[in-house]
Amino acid sequence: MKGELSAFLDQVRPAIDAALDGLLPVESAPPARIHQAMRYSVFAGGKRLRPALCLAGYSLYRQDLQAVLPVACAIEMAHTYSLIHDDLPAMDDDDFRRGVPSCHKKFGEAVAILAGDALLTLSFGVIAAAAAFPPDRIAGASARFAQALGTREGMIAGQVLDLDAEGRTVDEPGVEAIHRAKTAALISASVGIGAYLAGASGPDLEQIGVYGQNIGLAFQIVDDILDLEGGKDGERKKATYPAVYGLDRSVELARRFTSDGREAARKLGDRAALLIEIADSLETRCA
Amino acid sequence: MKGELSAFLDQVRPAIDAALDGLLPVESAPPARIHQAMRYSVFAGGKRLRPALCLAGYSLYRQDLQAVLPVACAIEMAHTYSLIHDDLPAMDDDDFRRGVPSCHKKFGEAVAILAGDALLTLSFGVIAAAAAFPPDRIAGASARFAQALGTREGMIAGQVLDLDAEGRTVDEPGVEAIHRAKTAALISASVGIGAYLAGASGPDLEQIGVYGQNIGLAFQIVDDILDLEGGKDGERKKATYPAVYGLDRSVELARRFTSDGREAARKLGDRAALLIEIADSLETRCA
Repeated sequence: MKGELSAFLDQVRPAIDAALDGLLPVESAPPARIHQAMRYSVFAGGKRLRPALCLAGYSLYRQDLQAVLPVACAIEMAHTYSLIHDDLPAMDDDDFRRGVPSCHKKFGEAVAILAGDALLTLSFGVIAAAAAFPPDRIAGASARFAQALGTREGMIAGQVLDLDAEGRTVDEPGVEAIHRAKTAALISASVGIGAYLAGASGPDLEQIGVYGQNIGLAFQIVDDILDLEGGKDGERKKATYPAVYGLDRSVELARRFTSDGREAARKLGDRAALLIEIADSLETRCA
Repeated sequence: MKGELSAFLDQVRPAIDAALDGLLPVESAPPARIHQAMRYSVFAGGKRLRPALCLAGYSLYRQDLQAVLPVACAIEMAHTYSLIHDDLPAMDDDDFRRGVPSCHKKFGEAVAILAGDALLTLSFGVIAAAAAFPPDRIAGASARFAQALGTREGMIAGQVLDLDAEGRTVDEPGVEAIHRAKTAALISASVGIGAYLAGASGPDLEQIGVYGQNIGLAFQIVDDILDLEGGKDGERKKATYPAVYGLDRSVELARRFTSDGREAARKLGDRAALLIEIADSLETRCA
């Protein structure tokens, strides 16, 4: 991560980590094993991109970031659940995640399945209990969250499309559909839920949704390029942008999505400066 | 199921099934595989005990049962998620559920993991969108639901305690703790969330909680006895009431829990007739 995003992440990460620590049951709470597994995966070194984006979306309209921190943490919990289940032997079968044993290698498959389930459950519980907001916004945020994680163009839809694609030739609309659902939906919802809880208007939320979808896609393309350069995913013939479009066109597409994202953010006026800086930083990760 | 409960289940099941049908994405909706798997497991012949208990709790205070139907269905979705994940090879490794292939045997492990995740996600989405209730009750119901499904004395806690117990000798408080968390928490929350959404008072909710915990335990004991008679669970040395207490004392305990549940229900006055009939019916399943 370069530039403003990196600075923003560094600035908010301590508060996010402290809030996650406060929201997750302590390791010693019985049954200890599940709480150890949940904490192990949540504190295994994530960048905290999604909760930071939630704070960024909120900060467009309100400055009391403390209020939205639990919701930002709920988003990170759900992201972590998706990584734990994604790494399972029946899914991507990854023994390592961020350089350390994945949850199922460390705690066994049964506990890993339950730790993912538990983080997903807790994420909704944390949103339901976010007392800083009027209850209608809590319910609205929860509905948006479920949508972004769900089977209709949400994260689980992306996982299924990804499974369907493995070992097959995927065309250009195919790879976009996968990544829109698998990655961009939750990234977009992160900014969107932050802005929604801060009271953004309907038209603003629409632009923020377009912004989030576009930077989500750009983020995924850059990730695929970095993974390719790092030697990952290629051997399993996953549907990635570089595999479908080649490297040069992938870089070009990442630029185009970033530019479309910036465009949408500009319609929000002066308050969009942080969102534009984030878009630029996400794109230049692979420059 | 015998008696009044059976009649009540027969009476409400068609409406529950129709509402589930309306809330679950259609099979043809892309990605079709996940929606097929979700529907397969939800419509594999459940008794609909938990949603019926939610309707029963609601009916103590209000008669417009239609309003609470989506929430009752959300509870059934979460129950189904727990069965799908429980059947996975890494968990109980059950190839059959209610006489048909379990979700992972029918759709593969990856889709079964995702179908469970998807039902859990959708269950919270359905509660968040339950428009018939004031938003503060929606948020409250969602928080109670997350608690009942969670790792602190909720369903996942029960699953972990159950895993910890497998192959070991479990003592009497141990088996009660497992079943309080694994079964009774969600059964109790089913009645409790129904009553809460209908506007039950705090003291009433407390009695309903005691009622639910007790009939939940009685239900589990009777289930264990029926399973033992049917030849299940014994060979895996699971922590069951008959295994720990023997058959006679298990029957006696089921009676005692039922009686404690009835006692709590009686404190609600005349409106508790249905709850008392349900308690009686659950107990006499194995008489």
